Parts: sequence; structure tokens; C-alpha cells
Amino acid sequence: MAGDLTDPMGPNALREERSKVEFDVEAMKVVWAGGVEEKNIQDRIKTLVANDPVFDKKSRPGLDHKTLVKLSMKKAAHAFKLFQEQNMTEHEATLVRYYVDEPGFADLHWGMFIPAIKGQGTEEQQKKWLPLAQKMSIIGCYAQTELGHGSNVQGLETEAVFDPSADEFVLHSPSLTSTKWWPGGLGKASTHAVVYARLITDGKDYGVHAFIAQIRSLEDHHPLPGVTVGDIGVKFSNGGYNTMDNGLLRFDHVRIPRENLLMRLATVTKEGKYVKSGYPKQLGYGAMVSVRAHIINDASDFLSRAVTIATRYSAVRRQFGGGDGKPEIQVIDYKSQQSRLFPILASSYAFRFVGEWMTTLYDDVMARLQVNDFTTLPEVHACTAGLKSICTSYTAKSIEECRILCGGHGYLCSSGLPELYGAYVPSCTYEGDNTILLFQVARYLIKSLSQVGGGKNPTGTAAYLGNIRRLATENCRVKQGAEWLNYQTVLEAFQARAARLSGACALKLNKAPDLEAAFEEYSTDMGEAAQAHCQVIIVDKFAEKMKSEFPGKGTKDILEVLFFVYSLDLITRHAAEFLSTGYLTSEQLALAKDQLRACFRKVRPNAVGLVDAFGHTDHYLGSILGRYDGDVYPNLYKAAWEEPLNDTVVAEGYEPYLRPILKHQLRQSKL
Amino acid sequence: MAGDLTDPMGPNALREERSKVEFDVEAMKVVWAGGVEEKNIQDRIKTLVANDPVFDKKSRPGLDHKTLVKLSMKKAAHAFKLFQEQNMTEHEATLVRYYVDEPGFADLHWGMFIPAIKGQGTEEQQKKWLPLAQKMSIIGCYAQTELGHGSNVQGLETEAVFDPSADEFVLHSPSLTSTKWWPGGLGKASTHAVVYARLITDGKDYGVHAFIAQIRSLEDHHPLPGVTVGDIGVKFSNGGYNTMDNGLLRFDHVRIPRENLLMRLATVTKEGKYVKSGYPKQLGYGAMVSVRAHIINDASDFLSRAVTIATRYSAVRRQFGGGDGKPEIQVIDYKSQQSRLFPILASSYAFRFVGEWMTTLYDDVMARLQVNDFTTLPEVHACTAGLKSICTSYTAKSIEECRILCGGHGYLCSSGLPELYGAYVPSCTYEGDNTILLFQVARYLIKSLSQVGGGKNPTGTAAYLGNIRRLATENCRVKQGAEWLNYQTVLEAFQARAARLSGACALKLNKAPDLEAAFEEYSTDMGEAAQAHCQVIIVDKFAEKMKSEFPGKGTKDILEVLFFVYSLDLITRHAAEFLSTGYLTSEQLALAKDQLRACFRKVRPNAVGLVDAFGHTDHYLGSILGRYDGDVYPNLYKAAWEEPLNDTVVAEGYEPYLRPILKHQLRQSKL
Ligand SMILES: Cc1cc2nc3c(=O)[nH]c(=O)nc-3n(C[C@H](O)[C@H](O)[C@H](O)COP(=O)(O)OP(=O)(O)OC[C@H]3O[C@@H](n4cnc5c(N)ncnc54)[C@H](O)[C@@H]3O)c2cc1C
Ligand SMILES: Cc1cc2nc3c(=O)[nH]c(=O)nc-3n(C[C@H](O)[C@H](O)[C@H](O)COP(=O)(O)OP(=O)(O)OC[C@H]3O[C@@H](n4cnc5c(N)ncnc54)[C@H](O)[C@@H]3O)c2cc1C
Ligand SMILES: [Ca+2]
Repeated sequence: MAGDLTDPMGPNALREERSKVEFDVEAMKVVWAGGVEEKNIQDRIKTLVANDPVFDKKSRPGLDHKTLVKLSMKKAAHAFKLFQEQNMTEHEATLVRYYVDEPGFADLHWGMFIPAIKGQGTEEQQKKWLPLAQKMSIIGCYAQTELGHGSNVQGLETEAVFDPSADEFVLHSPSLTSTKWWPGGLGKASTHAVVYARLITDGKDYGVHAFIAQIRSLEDHHPLPGVTVGDIGVKFSNGGYNTMDNGLLRFDHVRIPRENLLMRLATVTKEGKYVKSGYPKQLGYGAMVSVRAHIINDASDFLSRAVTIATRYSAVRRQFGGGDGKPEIQVIDYKSQQSRLFPILASSYAFRFVGEWMTTLYDDVMARLQVNDFTTLPEVHACTAGLKSICTSYTAKSIEECRILCGGHGYLCSSGLPELYGAYVPSCTYEGDNTILLFQVARYLIKSLSQVGGGKNPTGTAAYLGNIRRLATENCRVKQGAEWLNYQTVLEAFQARAARLSGACALKLNKAPDLEAAFEEYSTDMGEAAQAHCQVIIVDKFAEKMKSEFPGKGTKDILEVLFFVYSLDLITRHAAEFLSTGYLTSEQLALAKDQLRACFRKVRPNAVGLVDAFGHTDHYLGSILGRYDGDVYPNLYKAAWEEPLNDTVVAEGYEPYLRPILKHQLRQSKL
Repeated sequence: MAGDLTDPMGPNALREERSKVEFDVEAMKVVWAGGVEEKNIQDRIKTLVANDPVFDKKSRPGLDHKTLVKLSMKKAAHAFKLFQEQNMTEHEATLVRYYVDEPGFADLHWGMFIPAIKGQGTEEQQKKWLPLAQKMSIIGCYAQTELGHGSNVQGLETEAVFDPSADEFVLHSPSLTSTKWWPGGLGKASTHAVVYARLITDGKDYGVHAFIAQIRSLEDHHPLPGVTVGDIGVKFSNGGYNTMDNGLLRFDHVRIPRENLLMRLATVTKEGKYVKSGYPKQLGYGAMVSVRAHIINDASDFLSRAVTIATRYSAVRRQFGGGDGKPEIQVIDYKSQQSRLFPILASSYAFRFVGEWMTTLYDDVMARLQVNDFTTLPEVHACTAGLKSICTSYTAKSIEECRILCGGHGYLCSSGLPELYGAYVPSCTYEGDNTILLFQVARYLIKSLSQVGGGKNPTGTAAYLGNIRRLATENCRVKQGAEWLNYQTVLEAFQARAARLSGACALKLNKAPDLEAAFEEYSTDMGEAAQAHCQVIIVDKFAEKMKSEFPGKGTKDILEVLFFVYSLDLITRHAAEFLSTGYLTSEQLALAKDQLRACFRKVRPNAVGLVDAFGHTDHYLGSILGRYDGDVYPNLYKAAWEEPLNDTVVAEGYEPYLRPILKHQLRQSKL
């Protein structure tokens, strides 16, 4: 091979970048991880995973679904072996799965099957099933969605008819659309499932309940009699979510013991009588908050990975300019690149802090539930639904934006970004379709506002709506650009816009003869109001975080800059709402834009430091463009030669297809 | 298997939809195709392709890159055989490749290699190379981009040093970053390449020129001595663009005859003297217009496929509501679904009409070039660059939107949408990075405005800027909602916003000491102004199209509705610009939104008819969700069983990995 195939430019660029950083990156790593101790644990586990060859993922995007699922089972087995050998805590084990970075059946087993039993099983049931699940003597999944029903859970069709003569439920799939469809881990791995089915006893349909059903033999893994089960096929993107065996499941009069109804909320007696347990339904809501806190943390994690890749590569990549011995311009120096990249960087931190806050929210909810205080639940419900919706939508969109910011090379799987997107984007759909979630928020806002009218002020994240009169009338007072760099000014702007949008929606509904029809008709406005409300929460929690102490030189200063990048960028992107509600004038908007550009200038020298602070290993990033050392080009080149197509010098298609074309022998050749 | 696995609901829904359509779908098909004759040709070819088993693409998303490239070579050979056997016209042959719907080496051969020779070769060179290429005695690709340079073509590093002693150029890759990287068809298929390299003669570098280089043997397809060539690896998404062998290429002092320099613009004499031919560079610009017209037509085509899938499925899919024997609500009846779906539907038509106009623009440019009239070129250049940028960006984004609108099932490859996105999205990057293209438009706008100051009015698509004084001062006069439903009112609004944004940019630059620095600083504003200008063009051409006659009952009426959906939706989404420039008041904006919602109601009964009018075959759509017959669920179910993972009842990973987990034998097992 000809010539020198090294290239010092990339590593030099990142070294230079790192020398310019103005804050203490090690201290920021602690901020990001959420404490010194947590950082130490994470560092240990991520290094362990990165150094273990079984967890290698380099060739993943080139593998087919079947191979991917098989390898993912191998990784799961290896991980489980590690948990046991190293006697890991639950937290450590979770971190291993996290850093392995591969969707797989075990996620559903640990993340949905076990929590469902904990949440909906009686103590007796938990005693029976949890040890089996925790030792993985059984593998479970979460079988709710059907071919015909996802969002509308109450419309599920699978039936569980109680047969008192045998003391059994008979699970049955009465139609094609009742086929369970999508559950992860169901396709090929699970032995058991939490199955959602209509409980029918004595001819009466009591609606959807959760049951535990065994679906495969514990001896030879064959489906049990009456059970039809398989994988639903290949999904979006290479690698990505195709390591998962999302499955389908049909029951043909499959019998399960009566005790397999998860009975915390309701039981059926031997005689077939349906009895509510009296256990307050709301006690299960803590789990929801916890799941959604995880989702927000995942959002900040995926976002931080994407922006690490795009930021480092933008510092390595040079295009145009230069000459006279000077190198070309780093594309990170283009303002257009900055204006797309830096808000994503800021959002990673914003989402991290709101996720952190959600864990305290969880503690608060749990403490209240202990004393049967359910008052905050509607607010918590709306807040977490909304945050799930807007954080996942923004993250998905921004991963793609990061890929586009990498130009052509971002389109190669070796950039890591295509897989990141493919694996992430379904979170906009599962755990609640993002559109539908926003409508739930809107309904809560409308209801809250109607109560404000009656003198009852909302609490928690919606408390600001109590000030709607002031917020709706006092406009922004900014006269000079620098006034924008004030937490209170920014927060007020977000509150005023959200309150005004919600207020306008409420007004429209008030005037309407048919509330539901009006809600439908103005659903776009409802969605906007809900989104504005959720942005208030994130801005508020970020501002609150900024009141705390930060370790290390310069960390607080640069986080402050990121706060204003985050918030002023949102104001710019949603300017129509700030303007049309009359809160901002065009001049004030222009001043905000000026400040935003000024903030970009402050971020610029710190950009690489800010992504370094996420502490992602090269293994976890899985990206040549995002390598810590910046040695991009030689490694892109090297990786190309690992492409299986290059195993033969002459393509397999040459003899049968290309040669006949080139030699004008197509007429004779059989294709 | 248990139960009845049919489901009449889907087919019934679409039948019902079709019975409600208010316009003549067959006539609209003619409008879409661009004439009766063209429609007949298209129908014949698309049916031919759809019925040919070699062109089947059902299993494509599950195949690996190597297999995909091989099958794609098979399809290319089969297609070429068809061209010959059926004695097809060039247009018919192009349509075959189009409906085969699979990126492959032949696209570059026909679409880039041959046009490059036509555009840059002398008549003598064309006489030599074109027959070889047209018979496919050679297979060519277009090797411009390098590892280190894409957007900045002038920065390419590959060298072509003239050696007068041998009358040859010596092609050489002097650095790692000079490696050719990305050219489609290069990786495994091509025997020849148009190579862009720095022409160096007598020690002087004359910049980047195009050369024809043979890279593989015509006897055994082995790379020629000194040539290193291979595939760059797997790319975003399953199937999609992975049927293409994007390649890398390095030269180690490879000699090619002097005559292989494409010499239309410049030659090198035997003695090594560089001589410009005197042939005006501008004469090549027609090709650019033609390529970009194709890109816009592709945009409308991809968009129309995505929206066909999402629209039909939204009519089949039901979620919530119903009860008392009534079926649930079709999700297409949710206003939030409509407000995302219908603008995409309208955009498909808008892009189609602007693409149609671009072919007339091409004729106009060619006619002018004949008489050395280059005056319109800057305007044409800006207009086509801008349209490429905004149409491809919108299309990519909207394909994903269509997928999300299909809920969970959209994430399955069998929905067709993941592959559509994967194959489409690189068009935002190639043929000019969309961000950079918008800046070119902005530069043109600024320049035009400065000339308006000097009394010289821009022409063509920029002519409205001549009225900037009026446009900048007269605000919108709409007082009642219905006034929005007026072509002139809408067009004026777009022109005023674009003129004001451009004007504001020009003002900022005028005040700045350093023009380039200011352009950089305000690049976001520049981009916005450019985008606004391009939207003027699309709205204008759509309005112009509406002045023509349309065949069939109701076609014109519904197209008129689509015009207002397209334009009022844009006003809503870019409201900040209409408000902040003072052109619209919040009240006028609210009226526009009301009208938009009213238009959605008019679209609703015609939605399925409007996508039927695209005339896509089920083969071309490649989507179970988008099937013409609406028989979605049974076919999703059937397709799942074709997943290779389901070939064995028990997963391959069971024995080695799952069983040891379940049986607690991990300690003993070797993973
Ligand atoms: C990768 C992946 C993994 C999954 N894993 C699991 C799992 O482990 N277990 C499990 O049980 N399920 C799982 N699911 C299923 C998932 O929970 C559902 O796909 C999700 O709930 C969305 O429901 P849907 O697909 O029915 O969407 P639909 O509700 O059919 O949505 C289609 C469209 O209709 C719109 N729409 C629907 N209702 C309304 C309304 N009332 N108002 C306005 N618009 C509306 C939606 O916004 C959307 O645009 C998974 C899905 C995916 C993609
Ligand atoms: C699927 C695919 C097929 C291709 N096929 C071919 C082919 O057949 N033949 C061929 O020769 N090439 C091909 N290419 C290469 C393609 O033409 C380039 O990728 C494209 O020109 C973009 O250039 P780049 O990758 O260098 O991006 P870059 O220029 O490196 O872009 C990176 C980032 O920098 C930004 N940026 C760069 N310059 C500026 C600036 N001046 N101002 C502001 N921002 C800037 C960009 O906006 C982008 O965000 C293909 C690429 C792909 C993805
Ligand atoms: Ca394979």
C-alpha cells in the first residue's frame, strides 16, 4: 500500500482544544455523574465493560437480526455470570447492562417483568416469583401491546376467562388483532410473560388485568401447548434495536392457575367472584415516576453521546479556508455549526439535571404515598408524562442533527450515530406515544386553570399557574441585551408564555359547546401549551441546580453559560409563541438572539471539555468520529478493511453478473 | 394455529374511504404523472418491474451489506438485459431503474459518469468513451470526494502530475486524507472512474480537474497495479443505501494517457503546456439544473411514498373511542394526526409542481446558453441550490414524521418507512451539503439587494426583490379569515417576509466592517432569509400551476385546498418570521390557523384519493402498512413468519447461552 497512512492533525486538534478549556473537567465529571462515589462506581464498571472482549460491538451494524439476537444472548449470559462472580450490587449490575449498550431481552426481564410483579403482585406472589426471576431460573417479558392496540390499553382483546371448575384462567386470543405484538424478549428468549388480558368471570368482563403465563418449557424451551410465539421481524436501523427479539404471541385456550392473576388490586375467588382488594391504585404510581426518571436520564445519556461524537469530530474536521501553510478552518468554528451543536450540548446538561431532580421527586412521592397523601399525583403524572414526551422527541431529533453535522462520514455506521438513532428513536413511541402524552399534560393544565378560577392554586411544577393573572398581563421588561442573562428574567418569560398559551386554550374550551370536540379541534394549540409547560419545568430545575455549590474551577461559570444557551435557544426556536402572546417584542427577541450568539462564543473554547466531562469511553461511544484521541482518518480507513465485502478482492457478483454485462453475454446468461 | 387470522376491517376502511373521495382520481394521476402519455409509459414500466421476481425487495432489510451488493448487481444485470431485449428508450430504461428502487452502481454509471464525460469531455473524447459506457463495456463511477474533503472541492489532494517524457499523467494519493472516499459503485463494481485531481504540470498546480482512470482489469476485474480499492463499509439503515458499494481508492503513481484529462475546458499539450480551451465554463451549467430538477422530483417521489403509507395506514388504524358496536376511531380522524400528515401530502404536490417547472427552467437555460446569454445563471444557480436544500431537508424529516405517525408498527422494516428514510437521507448531504447551499442562496440575495439599490432589478425567481420598498412597508391587510384563501394574499405574505428578512441581513452586513465575518456571525439569519426566498419560489410555482387547466371533476378544487394547506402551514410553522418582521399581527396569524384547520376538513375525505393518485404500486411502496388493499394485519402477521429467526422454534442462542442461565450452569459454561 502506498504512502504514509497516519494523520497527526486529528490528535493535535483535540490536544489543542483540551489545552484551551477554561474549567476543571474532572470536577465537571463529578457533577455529571452525580457525586464522587457514583462516579467511581461508574468508572469502574464502564472500564470493566470496555475491556471485556465479549462486549465488543464494532461489527454489530453489519450483522443480521438472527446473529444479533444470538450474540445478545451471549452478552446477557456473560453479564449475568459477571454479576454472580463479582457479587455485584443491583446498581452495579444495572450499570453493566447500561454500558454494554445493547437492547436485549434482559432489559425487559429486569426492567419490566420484575417491576410488574413488584407493583401488581401480592406479597405472597412476590415471594413466589421474585426469587425465580432474580436468579433467572425463569426469563420474563412484558406482554401488553397487541397487533391492534397499543396506545389504547383498555381496548386489548386477549381474554382470560375464569373456569371455576378447574380453578384456572383460560388465556385465549380471540382474533388476529389480539395477537400480542412487540414485547421485547418475547420472540425468542422468554419462558414467562406478564400478559395483559381482559378478566372475564361469570360472563362479565372486568377489563384488562395482568397475569403471569409460562410460555416456553423450562426443559427444552419449546413453546407450551396452545402457545404460538415468534419474532416479529427486523426493525429500523442496522444493529440498534435488532439485538432485541420483539415477539408475537397467541394463546389457544391456554390454562394458567388462578393464582397467576396478579392480585394486588383485585382478586378472583375460587368461586369466580371478582373482588377489589381495597389497595389504593395510586400506590403503584411511584413505579411510573421511577421509570420516567430513567427515561429522562437515558435521554441525557444518548444526547450526550451523540453530541460528544459531533463535537469532537467538528473539532477534528476542517473544511475551507486556510492556505499559506495555515490549516483549514475547523468546522466547529462555523457559527452555523455552533448554533446547531451547542444547544444540544446544553440540553444534555439540562436533561441530566431535570432527571436528577426526578429522583428526588420520586422520593417525595414515595414518602407521601406512605401516608396516603395522593394530592400531588395529578401534577406529578402530568409533569413526568410531559418530560418524557419532550425530552425523548428532542433527543431523537438531535441525534440525527448530530449525524448531519458530521457531513458524509456521519452516514457511515462506524460513526456510531446511525445505530444510536436507531436504538433510541422507539422511545418516542413506547412508554406512551409522545403526542398522546402531551395531550394528557394539556388536560391537566386546563383543569388546573379552571381550579385557579375557583381559588385553588396548583402546586409543584404547576404552581406558577397560580400567578396567571400577573403572568398574562405583565410583559417582558428587557431593554438591554445583558438583562437577558438573568435566571429570573428567563424563567418569567417561560412561565408567562406557558401560562398565556394554557390560558388561551382554556378560553377556547370554555367557549365551546362540546368540550371534547373543542379539545380535538385545537389539539395543536393544546400540544403547544403542554410543551411550553414542560419547558418551564426544565428551565426551572436547571436554574434551581445553579443555586447549588459546584466543585472545581470554572464549572459553575460554564454551566451558567449553558443555562442561557439552553433557554435562549428555546426562546429563539419558539419565538412565535413568545411574540404572538404579546410577551416579547421583536426587539427583545433580537436582543435575546444577540446574547445567545455571545454565549456561543463562550462555549466555543470549552466545547471539547464539556463533552469530555461526560466521561464516555470509546467503547461506549462506539464511534470512530468521536474517538477520544481524535485519530479519526486512520481509523476510518482501517475499519473499512474490516468490511466483509472486502474479504475478496473481486466481488462475488462479478462472475455471475458483472462479467456478463461487461462481456456482452447477458443474452446467454441465466440470472 | 388457533382462530381466524383474517381481518376485513382494513380493506373495508379503505373501500369506504375511496367511496367518499370527491374528485376524479384517475384524472389526478395524469396531473401527477405530467400527462397522459407519460402516465401510460410509467404505468407500463412500473407494472413490468413489479411483476418481475428478480426485482423483489421484500427480504432486503434483513440482508447484510455483502449480500445486498451482490443482489443489486444481479438486478442491474437483469435490468440491462431488459433494456436490450425490449429495445427500450433511454427514458424507459431510466424508469426501470427508478421503479427497481434500489441504489446501486448503475445509478452512478448512468447518472454521474456518463454526464461528466458529456459535460467535460471534448467531442473526440465523447466519441471514444460514450459508446463504451452506453454498452456497459466499461462501468464508471464519479470519484470526487476524499476522506479529507467533500464540501471543499478545491481542497482535494489527489495529484495528477504530467510527465511529458511519457505523455502521461501520474495519478497519486499523497496522503491518507487524499484517499477517494464515498464514490458509489467504486467499492466493488466499477472498472473506470472520473477522478478529480489537481492538475500539475511543469511544477505548477492548476487546481482540480477531471480525469478518466481505469481502476480494474477488464479481463478479471482485479485492481490495476498501483490501485488500492475497496468498500468503505456499512451505512445507515437496513437495506437502504447498503445495496451500494461506496468505495475508497488510492493511487500509487498510476499512469494514464494524457488524453484521459477531460479537455473541454482546458488541455495540456504534449509539451506540458496548460491551455484553456476558451469554451465558456458556463455552458456546463445546464447539467446542474437538470440534476437538481431530478433531485426535486425525487423529493416529491419519496415524500409521496411516505405519505401514501402513513395516510392509508392512518385510515386503517383505529385507536380509542367506539364501543356499543361501533368501531374505534380511525387515527386519521384525530386533528393532531391530520395537522402533521396533510401538510406532507400537500408538500408532495408542491414539490412535484416546482420540479415540473424546473424542467422548463432547464429548457430556458439551454436556449440562452445556445446564444451565449449567461445573464440568468446566478439567479438560476441560487434558485436551484436553494430548492435542493429545502426540499431534501423537508423530505427527509417528513419521512421520519410519517413513520412516527404509524406508531409502533412504523418501526418495523416491513412498514417500508425505515428503508425509505435510510435511502433518502443522504441526499441532504450529497450534491451539496444543505447548510452550505443555503448560504450560497443568501449571498445571492444580498448581492441582488445591493444591486436593487443601484437600480438594477433582479429577474426570474428573485424579481420580487425589486419591490422591496413596497414589500418592506406595506403590511398584511387580512381582516377576515376567508381573505387568506387568496393566491395573491398568500404570495405577497411570503414575498414580504422573504424580502424583509433579506433586507435585514443586508443591513447588518452593510454596517459591518468585515463582510465575511459579519456573514459568519449572522449565518442563522442568512439561512432563514434563504429559506424564506425558496419558499416564495415554491408557493409561486404552485400558484402559477393553479392557473392552468386540469382534467377531471374536482381535481382543481382539491389542489386549491392543498395549495392553502401547503402555504398556510408554512406560515404557521415560520410564524416568528412573519410576526417579527411586522408583516403579520397575532390576530392575522390566528385567522390563518383557523383557515388551515378548515382546509384540513376539506382534505380529510379526499386524503386516500390524493395518495392513490400518486399511482404507486405495492411493489414500489414496499410497505405492508401502505398496501393498496388495506389488508394490513394479516400481512404483518404473515411477514413475521418469514423472519429467519423463526426458522427454528428454539433459538440458536438457547443451548449455549440461555440454558446455562436458566439452569444455573454459567460458572461451568464457556461463553
Ligand atoms: C421497539 C419497541 C419496543 C416495544 N416493546 C414493548 C414491550 O416490551 N411490551 C409491550 O407491551 N409493548 C411494547 N411496544 C409497543 C409500544 O408500547 C406501542 O407501540 C406504543 O404504545 C404505541 O402504540 P401503537 O403502536 O398502538 O400506536 P398507535 O396508538 O396506533 O399510534 C398511531 C398514531 O395514532 C395517533 N393516535 C393514537 N391515538 C390517538 C389519540 N387518542 N389522539 C391523537 N392521536 C392518536 C398516534 O399519535 C400515532 O401518530 C414496543 C414498541 C416498540 C416500537
Ligand atoms: C451516501 C453517499 C453517497 C455519496 N456518493 C458520492 C459519489 O458518488 N461521489 C463522490 O465524489 N462523493 C460522494 N459522496 C460524498 C458527498 O458528496 C459528501 O459527503 C458531501 O459533499 C458533503 O461533504 P463532507 O462529507 O465533506 O461534509 P463536510 O463539509 O465535512 O461537512 C461537515 C459539517 O461541516 C459543515 N460545514 C462545512 N463547510 C462549511 C462552511 N463553509 N460553512 C458552514 N458550515 C460548513 C457542514 O454543514 C457540516 O455540518 C457521497 C456521500 C454519501 C453520504
Ligand atoms: Ca448474514
